Amino acid sequence: MSDQPKADVARRNFLLTAGIALAATGTTVSAQLSVQPPVPPSGPKKKLGMVLFDGFELLDVFGPLEMFGMLKDRVEIVMIADKAGPVRSGAGPQTIADHGFADAPKLDIVMIPGGLGTRREVNNADFLAAVRTLAQDTPQVATICTGSGLLAKTGLIDGVKATSNKMAWAWATAQGAKVAWIPHARWVEDGKYISSSGISAGTDMALGLIAKLYGKEMARWVANRTEYRWQEDASDDPFAKLNGLPG
Amino acid sequence: MSDQPKADVARRNFLLTAGIALAATGTTVSAQLSVQPPVPPSGPKKKLGMVLFDGFELLDVFGPLEMFGMLKDRVEIVMIADKAGPVRSGAGPQTIADHGFADAPKLDIVMIPGGLGTRREVNNADFLAAVRTLAQDTPQVATICTGSGLLAKTGLIDGVKATSNKMAWAWATAQGAKVAWIPHARWVEDGKYISSSGISAGTDMALGLIAKLYGKEMARWVANRTEYRWQEDASDDPFAKLNGLPG
Repeated sequence: MSDQPKADVARRNFLLTAGIALAATGTTVSAQLSVQPPVPPSGPKKKLGMVLFDGFELLDVFGPLEMFGMLKDRVEIVMIADKAGPVRSGAGPQTIADHGFADAPKLDIVMIPGGLGTRREVNNADFLAAVRTLAQDTPQVATICTGSGLLAKTGLIDGVKATSNKMAWAWATAQGAKVAWIPHARWVEDGKYISSSGISAGTDMALGLIAKLYGKEMARWVANRTEYRWQEDASDDPFAKLNGLPG
Repeated sequence: MSDQPKADVARRNFLLTAGIALAATGTTVSAQLSVQPPVPPSGPKKKLGMVLFDGFELLDVFGPLEMFGMLKDRVEIVMIADKAGPVRSGAGPQTIADHGFADAPKLDIVMIPGGLGTRREVNNADFLAAVRTLAQDTPQVATICTGSGLLAKTGLIDGVKATSNKMAWAWATAQGAKVAWIPHARWVEDGKYISSSGISAGTDMALGLIAKLYGKEMARWVANRTEYRWQEDASDDPFAKLNGLPG
């Protein structure tokens, strides 16, 4: 996918051919912008499933999907909820689940967002069981914001390092007393699990996951194409201190 | 709306009552985090309409709506397209339009996103006429990314300062030769029009618009709640140079 016309491609190809270095200021805008991804596609497409529930947080879902959506030649996105059909976000706009849990395809990556709806879903045994099965069956599991509270409640990440939203820290961490919660982190990776801090942190984590799967130059390329200043340092978290958590 | 439970509220209220300064590092994380917005609601809710079309860019739409969605006590979000019903993004996920253009409510703010679908819609006379009417009738008009190309094609912003996606600059600016295009800008405001650079820039612009409507402390409060490092300087744009545009 590319939001650019032929004229722009031709102009930039000329610039690149001419060997002009297009170095930008700023720590995370360092790669030269290229029309093609720095790594060619290989192997089958990965299937990325995003879990939805009433009251999900918009950016938890669509920040990471914007970044992975830039890799359309190697990633296919599917939306999964209790059942197929419309699911309303906390802010109001509705998104469509392509599958219910019962007919979800086999995934390579599953993502679990946060939002106010998590407060209801931690008491929904059927939902928790479905999320647990999906996470067990998927080789890469990512949570955004209070999504880590949902995953913690399934028991799957007991003993695993994870983080969560810093405003909702007390609630999220109470969902799994045995989780190795990390209060000061933009995102945390531990084995097949990766978890982000609140809302916007999911976008930085998604680029971190792209870096893990496809290399850091690929992540920087995606960030540049989306005009996003990627915070590459997973340990840089001013919001922990802002919420009175240990820094 | 608040993604936080009572225990967190109580804890932070205690900290604030105790007068502990929760200053964070980083230039845009400066306000102390408060449970309540720094400005109380007054007057009727504003109605924010987001225009959708097949092939819209996910973050163009949901970055700004995440930020305005934090102001649920003063902003109502509605989604508007050619007709009510599902609309597919460029990356795949579908969102539901609440209204068609013909039955759209009177708006206070209208937003026009970009995405590859703009390449089709600039040749869709009915769509352009509907967008033109909506923008004419609305006191605050915002475009994200190549959405400014769509608005330019309606002729409404001839002589108006605007910016657009830096990778798709040649295409976007060709949609309106009389627009006062600004190549180096994160976002640009001119009268009732505000326009952002590519994709992620829409989120910074949305906070700029919140600052205009409700004050800068409100915008910082929203940024902190969403754990977002707001780029407050609208003129700070490394992506212009990265794409070979004048800096």
